Amino acid sequence: MADFQESETLRMETFSDGVFAIDITLLTFQLKTPSLRAATSNQSLALALFHQWPNYIAYFISFTTIFIIWLNHHRMYNVIQRSDVRFMFYNGLLLLLVSIIPFTTSLLADYINTPAHSLSAALYMFLFAGISGVLFVMWNYATANYRLLKRPAGDVRIQSIRTSHLVSVITYTFAAVVSFLLPFLSILVGLVMVVYLSQLKYHRNKVV
Amino acid sequence: MADFQESETLRMETFSDGVFAIDITLLTFQLKTPSLRAATSNQSLALALFHQWPNYIAYFISFTTIFIIWLNHHRMYNVIQRSDVRFMFYNGLLLLLVSIIPFTTSLLADYINTPAHSLSAALYMFLFAGISGVLFVMWNYATANYRLLKRPAGDVRIQSIRTSHLVSVITYTFAAVVSFLLPFLSILVGLVMVVYLSQLKYHRNKVV
Amino acid sequence: MADFQESETLRMETFSDGVFAIDITLLTFQLKTPSLRAATSNQSLALALFHQWPNYIAYFISFTTIFIIWLNHHRMYNVIQRSDVRFMFYNGLLLLLVSIIPFTTSLLADYINTPAHSLSAALYMFLFAGISGVLFVMWNYATANYRLLKRPAGDVRIQSIRTSHLVSVITYTFAAVVSFLLPFLSILVGLVMVVYLSQLKYHRNKVV
Amino acid sequence: MADFQESETLRMETFSDGVFAIDITLLTFQLKTPSLRAATSNQSLALALFHQWPNYIAYFISFTTIFIIWLNHHRMYNVIQRSDVRFMFYNGLLLLLVSIIPFTTSLLADYINTPAHSLSAALYMFLFAGISGVLFVMWNYATANYRLLKRPAGDVRIQSIRTSHLVSVITYTFAAVVSFLLPFLSILVGLVMVVYLSQLKYHRNKVV
Repeated sequence: MADFQESETLRMETFSDGVFAIDITLLTFQLKTPSLRAATSNQSLALALFHQWPNYIAYFISFTTIFIIWLNHHRMYNVIQRSDVRFMFYNGLLLLLVSIIPFTTSLLADYINTPAHSLSAALYMFLFAGISGVLFVMWNYATANYRLLKRPAGDVRIQSIRTSHLVSVITYTFAAVVSFLLPFLSILVGLVMVVYLSQLKYHRNKVV
Repeated sequence: MADFQESETLRMETFSDGVFAIDITLLTFQLKTPSLRAATSNQSLALALFHQWPNYIAYFISFTTIFIIWLNHHRMYNVIQRSDVRFMFYNGLLLLLVSIIPFTTSLLADYINTPAHSLSAALYMFLFAGISGVLFVMWNYATANYRLLKRPAGDVRIQSIRTSHLVSVITYTFAAVVSFLLPFLSILVGLVMVVYLSQLKYHRNKVV
Repeated sequence: MADFQESETLRMETFSDGVFAIDITLLTFQLKTPSLRAATSNQSLALALFHQWPNYIAYFISFTTIFIIWLNHHRMYNVIQRSDVRFMFYNGLLLLLVSIIPFTTSLLADYINTPAHSLSAALYMFLFAGISGVLFVMWNYATANYRLLKRPAGDVRIQSIRTSHLVSVITYTFAAVVSFLLPFLSILVGLVMVVYLSQLKYHRNKVV
Repeated sequence: MADFQESETLRMETFSDGVFAIDITLLTFQLKTPSLRAATSNQSLALALFHQWPNYIAYFISFTTIFIIWLNHHRMYNVIQRSDVRFMFYNGLLLLLVSIIPFTTSLLADYINTPAHSLSAALYMFLFAGISGVLFVMWNYATANYRLLKRPAGDVRIQSIRTSHLVSVITYTFAAVVSFLLPFLSILVGLVMVVYLSQLKYHRNKVV
């Protein structure tokens, strides 16, 4: 049988948690101390810090988005009992993409104020679309014929979660495309999606 | 029901522990090797290292403060049995703010010896005030009507902890404001608060 | 008796997991934001990003390889019940070598496009050969006379895993040597080995 | 009562494990890719890498020493059942000092080849002496009147471990002082101590 035991599914979840926790903390490197020459008084330091506003916004959106992805990953594993080799590789792909978030965050923060803002915003949104796509595929695979679900699986809101992941893919892809016209819309979409994705209910009886 | 199960509260706690452990270790980047040109003998290396004293002090205060925040976070979760979506978002906000500590630590270390010292000290203290504020709100939310507490909840020192968090918010905010007159006072307040916060007793019967 | 208890074997495994998770996430530092001067428009940013293709390929191979090493480490511990001092030191050596992967990855990404490509590719492959060698030694030590195996040990595919690790050592060493003629072959070998190593079955009754 | 419950002692141990795992992995930053200008052929890259030998040695000693400290920390917690506030602060101090190892490692690697080698080697050894001192104090505190020990505590080799930690403090302090005459002796002492400390037996009946 190609199933993992429950304890092994747990271990993959723990490993994933570690990667999520490190990625969310590595975002800290977005916050850079202004160079000493730029700040010779409280006023000039305040100004130098103020000019870093794209970094703060990018930090905030990426932090909350990784937190929400972690939360949904956790909620998904909550209703899953087993795992198999293919599901584990989907999970590896998810971690690989999540680990790229600090890179696209850095791109967005550095370029949102330059003529290259459209591309940086588009890549930022496109990565989120890809991550949502992997979550969509993982969910479809786990729930087809209740393949990997805990019993009683009937309580799991399979269809509503499926739709939510699909909505995420479409919204992020749309934001990526629109970035070439309105780069700042991406930032707004990023914030709205955090609120939307935090509301997903995986289970009929409890909100987790 | 909007409650988390106990095991899920545990998982949020484990994730938080990971973020705390990484943040406390990232402080290490405050300690920088002096550039090779600055040190051509044991004496010049000693001097170059000595000139980094603001980094050592900032490292020490931030390390002990994060350790104490972790400890109080842990003590809070010790008397909590359940969790809900709102409490979890408070916890996410706490982690976001704690992850900024390496940034304000770096600011303090770089600017405490420059004319911009007041602003760097004020921001350093203000972040600690914000973190204390979130802990205050979390504690109020968890203990209102014994909402998330373990039974028997009567033993929990609700009011005394509440006061302590309020004292923290006020002291740190006061230190942030006073930084504009006496920047070095912040450092002293930071040290005193570590001792104060390490003494909090959450439970009548045992000190944890 | 020189054996570890089962719970202590678990703790070594958890510590190893932490190191694997951090190493796999530190690979993110391969992905560097192009300098602002290099990109004054969407086109020039796209070009600057495109020129970093060796970084993306090196990131991808290293990420998947660490993931696969973690997976095989996990599968090995799954069939092991005990541990002793010598096995623990083999494990420490494994972690030391895995922690060097971000360094050789960085070497490969920086030099694959320069006249020094052969050496960087050879070192990259040679480290993987060394890691496979340690896994081979660990497996031999654990399975000799079923020394550290869980019962019933008869179900463990001792010989087939042994062969697989030996194949890995030989293939990676071969790729390291051939790098001096065909440096890009290493990249191909790295990709093929990820697929090969993901297929290993440690146990007759289940695929884990 | 001022004791921690067993589960809380476990949580402090898990937090410490996280800090150890991150510190040991951050040592990777000692291994730096030579700058592209330094290497225009396989030969020049090989030479540039060879010139980094102090980094490799410093990496090796620090990695194995942190591993051994972790191991002894783990062995100590194995025979400890309870914890109290003071023991926890000793543990916090231990983590603070261990987190400085990447800094002194970097100092050693950068300066062992310069006229400032004595000071860098002395600081490197002195930090290890300090860490051994904290382990000595922790052990004395935990074992006085069997204060924090698991039952049956009679099997614990209290005196022999106590002596070993004392030997460590003296040896490392001696090496720190001698560094001003023979800086390279530190490196040798560092290697010998790893072997010595890996042999400590905390318990009469089993080697853990």
